Amino acid sequence: MNYPNGIKKRKTIHNISYKNRGMNLESDLNITNEYYRNIDRAYIYKKPTPIKIVKVDYESRHLATIKEAYFQEPSTTDYNGIYKGQYIDFEAKETKSITSFSLSNIHKHQITHLKNMLNHGGIAFLIVRFVRLDETYLLEAKKLLTFLEKYDRKSIPLSYFQKSGYLIKYKINPRIDYLEIIDQIYGGIL
Amino acid sequence: MNYPNGIKKRKTIHNISYKNRGMNLESDLNITNEYYRNIDRAYIYKKPTPIKIVKVDYESRHLATIKEAYFQEPSTTDYNGIYKGQYIDFEAKETKSITSFSLSNIHKHQITHLKNMLNHGGIAFLIVRFVRLDETYLLEAKKLLTFLEKYDRKSIPLSYFQKSGYLIKYKINPRIDYLEIIDQIYGGIL
Repeated sequence: MNYPNGIKKRKTIHNISYKNRGMNLESDLNITNEYYRNIDRAYIYKKPTPIKIVKVDYESRHLATIKEAYFQEPSTTDYNGIYKGQYIDFEAKETKSITSFSLSNIHKHQITHLKNMLNHGGIAFLIVRFVRLDETYLLEAKKLLTFLEKYDRKSIPLSYFQKSGYLIKYKINPRIDYLEIIDQIYGGIL
Repeated sequence: MNYPNGIKKRKTIHNISYKNRGMNLESDLNITNEYYRNIDRAYIYKKPTPIKIVKVDYESRHLATIKEAYFQEPSTTDYNGIYKGQYIDFEAKETKSITSFSLSNIHKHQITHLKNMLNHGGIAFLIVRFVRLDETYLLEAKKLLTFLEKYDRKSIPLSYFQKSGYLIKYKINPRIDYLEIIDQIYGGIL
């Protein structure tokens, strides 16, 4: 990993778990969402990465090769779909920090998007994994927005996830059962 | 336009309107969805085109150029979002035919997807534009599925759109006011 601005990695010793080593959050969520679809529980997909295509070679009618393209900034969150008739929307991020989640990980328009989803009756949240602690939290969008209104900080401390969020326990299947948390939050309402 | 298998374009004379010339359905929908967002009416987005990236050049830390990539088949429909707390999902297609909409325009898994959305309480539909007639129809997913169950045909005749669908009238703003049709279908329920 490259650290920007010449910052060197501090070799602090912590009680770090490696249970989850090798699988990143995106893979875990893909597997989880596929599992939900297979058992007809929910239909939640990761949106494709937005790309600006500049040059395409059409070698044949059916085989087009993109020769020049650029990554674009997403205007929404990465995941959305339907669960029990409800609109679901979330963003998922990993952090290497063991103390806080830097808000530079989320674009401003993604936060605006989560706010809009919430205002329009959607179920909106963040899933954040503290990779080196091997802990994955679900934080409701309303708790994220409360934090942003209340504190003028550039990161959300781990303690806020522990206090106001929900730790997602790892399972065999589905790996990251975040809908169990949603059921817990909304009780019998959904 | 290229016609496959050596089929030549028939020069049939019809009463063809060119009012809508120059704007395709995707542009119209992008403008319409942007309008809906601006007035805080609904948040419906076109999903980015799924692309399989093979080769990326990292010229600098922030400028990555994709040098080889391929288009992938979408696993869902192109549009989804939220309106009045409801999950919205649709696919939009144009056809040059003046008599029918070929089902080869929609992938089988997109039809399965629309069916799943419907079963899980979402509002799911097709928007089809008959380009040469300058007519754009909204067809509810349930009407599409009824057609597929009832008839063993490779295309949906225009008459089915006229009878079972809704003609979307063009407006100045929003250009393709499909939510007006949704309001009409669901009456005061939403």
